[in-house]
Amino acid sequence: MDHRTVGDLMTHHVVRVRPDTPYKAIVRKLTEYEITAVPVVDGGGRVVGMVSQADLMPKAAGLSAASARPRPGPPGGRPVPETGAKAEGVRAADLMTSRPVCARPDWTVAEAALVMTERNLGRLPVVDEAEVLVGIVSRGDILRVYLRDDAAIRSEIELDVLWRCLGLSPSAVRVRVSQGQVTLTGTVEADDAGVLPVIGRLCRSVDGVVSVQRRVSCLRTGTESTAASGTR
Amino acid sequence: MDHRTVGDLMTHHVVRVRPDTPYKAIVRKLTEYEITAVPVVDGGGRVVGMVSQADLMPKAAGLSAASARPRPGPPGGRPVPETGAKAEGVRAADLMTSRPVCARPDWTVAEAALVMTERNLGRLPVVDEAEVLVGIVSRGDILRVYLRDDAAIRSEIELDVLWRCLGLSPSAVRVRVSQGQVTLTGTVEADDAGVLPVIGRLCRSVDGVVSVQRRVSCLRTGTESTAASGTR
Repeated sequence: MDHRTVGDLMTHHVVRVRPDTPYKAIVRKLTEYEITAVPVVDGGGRVVGMVSQADLMPKAAGLSAASARPRPGPPGGRPVPETGAKAEGVRAADLMTSRPVCARPDWTVAEAALVMTERNLGRLPVVDEAEVLVGIVSRGDILRVYLRDDAAIRSEIELDVLWRCLGLSPSAVRVRVSQGQVTLTGTVEADDAGVLPVIGRLCRSVDGVVSVQRRVSCLRTGTESTAASGTR
Repeated sequence: MDHRTVGDLMTHHVVRVRPDTPYKAIVRKLTEYEITAVPVVDGGGRVVGMVSQADLMPKAAGLSAASARPRPGPPGGRPVPETGAKAEGVRAADLMTSRPVCARPDWTVAEAALVMTERNLGRLPVVDEAEVLVGIVSRGDILRVYLRDDAAIRSEIELDVLWRCLGLSPSAVRVRVSQGQVTLTGTVEADDAGVLPVIGRLCRSVDGVVSVQRRVSCLRTGTESTAASGTR
């Protein structure tokens, strides 16, 4: 049950620009490194903004301050700077989102994923206590946990979740994993009935698990406890 | 003044998935091809949806149908399918945005950029008259027009805009281009005073132009007509 952290998944050597980097030099950097956004840092390496492909698009769309409509921000987030102003921008400081949401290296994958989902952000700069850039984590980095081998997932569920955490005998619950989708079948002792509500949630928290289908019954009552795919 | 079209910039060989492709296989495909989204096609090659990294994130965030908040859609666009439902999804059909906005190969770069900016979309599948997928165009493809060489931009402005289109003598207006930023200086004849309002707009429409600074005066009145950076 050792979850990977942002520090484990992030890219350490981060391409960056300065506030006075020109528009065309930003496009060149994004293209050369095949990235979709770049942090803007000050002289001390502190993150002062992010410029993404989306920030560069109003100019390509031929928008101007007069013609563009402002774009609403993500729920709970800062409003997105005016599209028209970005269409007129010629350097990073004009184009960037100021004071972007940053992650810390000790955040869990789920924490970073939640922030990125709720704010609809494609990547988070990762900073230390002094706000100095130490890495960047993207949706692609987060999703890579799902590339984990089915056999490794099965082994972690059998050993860490069922045996060490819940104290269930290996013969009681059978674990099958296919494409990250877990199916649990078997029967537990009456004394172990208490595990039934949490077994799905614990399996779901294992890195790389896509869904959990639980078909585990309890010996005393004989009542089978099943749940649909994705049960936690 | 031959503007590049979506057909010129799009990727022709498009990675695609089917509605029944499992979650993990989609993650593997996005990672393997280093892409952020993939079209979902039916048996006839027609686009029925798009699955992006953003659609896959709610699961990594540990969200469920019960816990997730719905996300508002882009202005004028369809509402984004419920985050919770996506967190439970195990195949493309559960995760995708149905009937996504598609482009046509004959769209101009500006048309595609406008749709992507207004709807906040990272890429558009490109389809023919029968809705069959023929390519995909991303923000990165669009922004590549800004990698155009300064000398090529200058040459197009001098020959196509000033000479062929506006009939101005090459000696009248001097063109400087640096980092895609155009500066026009000089003096035009009184008979050519009519070009002053449109000269900036025409230069701005040349592929790869980031901004236009116009310092061109008219001979008769001697009044210098200047405008700030980005004037169209």
